[in-house]
Amino acid sequence: MTSIDLNCDIGEDFGRYTLPNQKEILKYVTSANIACGFHAGDPSVMRETVKMAIEHGVKIGAHPGLPDLVGFGRREMAITYQEAYDMVVYQVGALQAFLAIEGEKMQHVKPHGALYNMAARDPEIAEAIAKAVYDISPDLILFGLASSELTKAGEKIGLTTAHEVFADRTYQMDGTLTSRNKPNALITDKDEAVQQVVRMIEEGKVKSRQGVDVHLRADTVCIHGDGEHAADFARYIKEELQKNGIAVKAFI
Amino acid sequence: MTSIDLNCDIGEDFGRYTLPNQKEILKYVTSANIACGFHAGDPSVMRETVKMAIEHGVKIGAHPGLPDLVGFGRREMAITYQEAYDMVVYQVGALQAFLAIEGEKMQHVKPHGALYNMAARDPEIAEAIAKAVYDISPDLILFGLASSELTKAGEKIGLTTAHEVFADRTYQMDGTLTSRNKPNALITDKDEAVQQVVRMIEEGKVKSRQGVDVHLRADTVCIHGDGEHAADFARYIKEELQKNGIAVKAFI
Amino acid sequence: MTSIDLNCDIGEDFGRYTLPNQKEILKYVTSANIACGFHAGDPSVMRETVKMAIEHGVKIGAHPGLPDLVGFGRREMAITYQEAYDMVVYQVGALQAFLAIEGEKMQHVKPHGALYNMAARDPEIAEAIAKAVYDISPDLILFGLASSELTKAGEKIGLTTAHEVFADRTYQMDGTLTSRNKPNALITDKDEAVQQVVRMIEEGKVKSRQGVDVHLRADTVCIHGDGEHAADFARYIKEELQKNGIAVKAFI
Amino acid sequence: MTSIDLNCDIGEDFGRYTLPNQKEILKYVTSANIACGFHAGDPSVMRETVKMAIEHGVKIGAHPGLPDLVGFGRREMAITYQEAYDMVVYQVGALQAFLAIEGEKMQHVKPHGALYNMAARDPEIAEAIAKAVYDISPDLILFGLASSELTKAGEKIGLTTAHEVFADRTYQMDGTLTSRNKPNALITDKDEAVQQVVRMIEEGKVKSRQGVDVHLRADTVCIHGDGEHAADFARYIKEELQKNGIAVKAFI
Repeated sequence: MTSIDLNCDIGEDFGRYTLPNQKEILKYVTSANIACGFHAGDPSVMRETVKMAIEHGVKIGAHPGLPDLVGFGRREMAITYQEAYDMVVYQVGALQAFLAIEGEKMQHVKPHGALYNMAARDPEIAEAIAKAVYDISPDLILFGLASSELTKAGEKIGLTTAHEVFADRTYQMDGTLTSRNKPNALITDKDEAVQQVVRMIEEGKVKSRQGVDVHLRADTVCIHGDGEHAADFARYIKEELQKNGIAVKAFI
Repeated sequence: MTSIDLNCDIGEDFGRYTLPNQKEILKYVTSANIACGFHAGDPSVMRETVKMAIEHGVKIGAHPGLPDLVGFGRREMAITYQEAYDMVVYQVGALQAFLAIEGEKMQHVKPHGALYNMAARDPEIAEAIAKAVYDISPDLILFGLASSELTKAGEKIGLTTAHEVFADRTYQMDGTLTSRNKPNALITDKDEAVQQVVRMIEEGKVKSRQGVDVHLRADTVCIHGDGEHAADFARYIKEELQKNGIAVKAFI
Repeated sequence: MTSIDLNCDIGEDFGRYTLPNQKEILKYVTSANIACGFHAGDPSVMRETVKMAIEHGVKIGAHPGLPDLVGFGRREMAITYQEAYDMVVYQVGALQAFLAIEGEKMQHVKPHGALYNMAARDPEIAEAIAKAVYDISPDLILFGLASSELTKAGEKIGLTTAHEVFADRTYQMDGTLTSRNKPNALITDKDEAVQQVVRMIEEGKVKSRQGVDVHLRADTVCIHGDGEHAADFARYIKEELQKNGIAVKAFI
Repeated sequence: MTSIDLNCDIGEDFGRYTLPNQKEILKYVTSANIACGFHAGDPSVMRETVKMAIEHGVKIGAHPGLPDLVGFGRREMAITYQEAYDMVVYQVGALQAFLAIEGEKMQHVKPHGALYNMAARDPEIAEAIAKAVYDISPDLILFGLASSELTKAGEKIGLTTAHEVFADRTYQMDGTLTSRNKPNALITDKDEAVQQVVRMIEEGKVKSRQGVDVHLRADTVCIHGDGEHAADFARYIKEELQKNGIAVKAFI
């Protein structure tokens, strides 16, 4: 039976600050990417989020970001290979300890925001992240943009990779996402979003903005936790995938 | 044969900033407490310091501190039990990952600066730290001020503890260190320092400022890495201990 | 005609994080204490908050806090006189520049959270803050807990001070606030809160938990911006004060 | 009489960490760019550095950087116009307060590191910085790379600008500095460095690595504070300029 993973960024509260939907969304996803304190999250938020994910039976991954709290890790920084490597090791390790105290194993690593985008495009940053994950543990699954430099680097070094696709974003004919600055970057009709994601899962194809089909492997679907109707949309996607005979489950 | 461990704080560089003696001192100590990014250290410094310690055959411990970079973790903060627990888990985990990539095991945890002092005195903070260390791994050794609340909490929860003594600090008759603000807090004569430490190791006693003997267990001696003659003093202490028939070695 | 100032902490968003009510509350207060980036706030939040306060005709003060973003400046830290002085100068200066670009003058300085509490109690910290404010400009008004060490230090150095009282907190017979950890610390009945604040303004007295009256000068009332009904309560207090013939206005 | 300003970055200590030469170099320069806490410096360092600069009769400028302490502000970040504007306002304001408590006036603003490089090249960042400086005070002098986007933006908005040249760096034929990653980026012979700088001051020309002369206006020379012989080189440059009949003095 065809299956797919649904993943969501979570644990992005910080100190007194909370973001909405962080808990509700856990009911529908199968993998959670937990912030590790660099772009969001703090030690107490991390501990609580790990517990919450475990209670919901959701598999846990680290969500390391750039050291830019005020920018929420969304501003690209000119970091070196070594800096990328080191910041991933640090953040993954910190989260692993919160899993250890709960007797839980980490499933995956998915870089956040600007680090994710840089890794999708830049082979050097991609390799640094893949190597960091591999060096920590070859059993970790590396999540990255489908058919990107990051999944390529992960496969090269010997990691299991999860190619990530988006239900509510449109694609360019080279397989990249349409930039959010451009019109038609987002798919707002939820049925259109479901159809796109079902086709990616079943056929490994997506129709690009240019009208031509692009081949993509779809292992996991990114479910956004922000936005007013995030949890509703997560539930809807999950139900529709199941109606289409696609099992929704994590990797381990 | 009687044996003792010599430990030193290390890896306290940050970004462009370096502290002196960080490398030299590794020649003489047997255990290194590596800063974890809260009071000092950054991911790159941590990676390099771990490698350096391994090259010198020195056992590695985490040196978690308060989240106060500008104060170097030396200013007490009114943190809760839970905050103390969480910040220790986070920092120990981060360092563990740098050990993992080198295939090395962590020996111990020693809190830094104000967190060390608070844990020596405050049973609640002591228990939080001991529990965090235990929950991460019961095999970790907890370093704390000899006969303090921290070693007590560690023993209560079932950890192996290392009672730490100081060669160059004087003691009060309740077993605490003379505050640095007071006269006679420091022992500047190196032979006097050696005699104090040899007696603590061999007899489990130290003469307090009040003239009465205090009973102390001495498992590890704190070697300061700062100060102009830090490395010289470390070498001298090590040689003198060995001349006195005391083996200098780590715990694992 | 008797008059009173109503002040509120504001500008406590940070990066992607927002707190509720930050804008609504400006309709009812006359003075706004704007966070300066140490416990909350960031440069962009500061600029926007200054603009918003000016649009509402609300006078602006700096709200410097301890350098503890994750703790929201609410954890006491063992800082020195000099550190307190320097962190106030830095933060007040940063906010002054955002006022300068709008052609606006700063009215006051009110320390935040743990720094406020420390300054209320500790003459040394109080003096450091008063001196910092005075050295920057003797025209600034220093806001502090009524009859506390901070107002005392301000008056001693020659600053105009604003004695702050609380509508929804109970008092001890020494004039301090009942600790939030204790029962009966909060006044939840809004009419009782109004009566307490009217009496403080008109008679300079408040009935303490011990039943005896305490003398307090009331120049400004702290209006909390957090809590679900914060804006409603602010409006209610303002209306009731005006019904009692008390003018609600700032100092300059 | 021809005159030139010599400027140096300073106040780049942080907390327990110190950089060498910070004091010695003040004997020879006429303008000091003081770090403002984002890439380096902290409130206490800022206060002490301001005092030290005043004692040496050196004019003071703000040296705002990117919010990247661990990277020392040397890593480019994808910031927006508004973020650049806001971070400059914040940092300049913070330093102004330390000048205010000493009764001193700020002479100039010079962005640091990656912010300086971005501003030299990117008209949008350049304009944001120029506008921030102008809005704070049109009397401030804007320091930027000679003939760069930053000096252009400053002149367009109506600021006095100081075109900065380098004695010990080589130039490309488009007037930019040879990247430090390339060979021949640095001039290590001190007489060659002096000759280059004298010619830039007297003739407004520099010979580029491509062999052709480039026209540059030279108002201020950057004197590096780091490097083992920094202070010696500063003294030598100053003496040689004076021997060549060039007065060394600040702008106000």
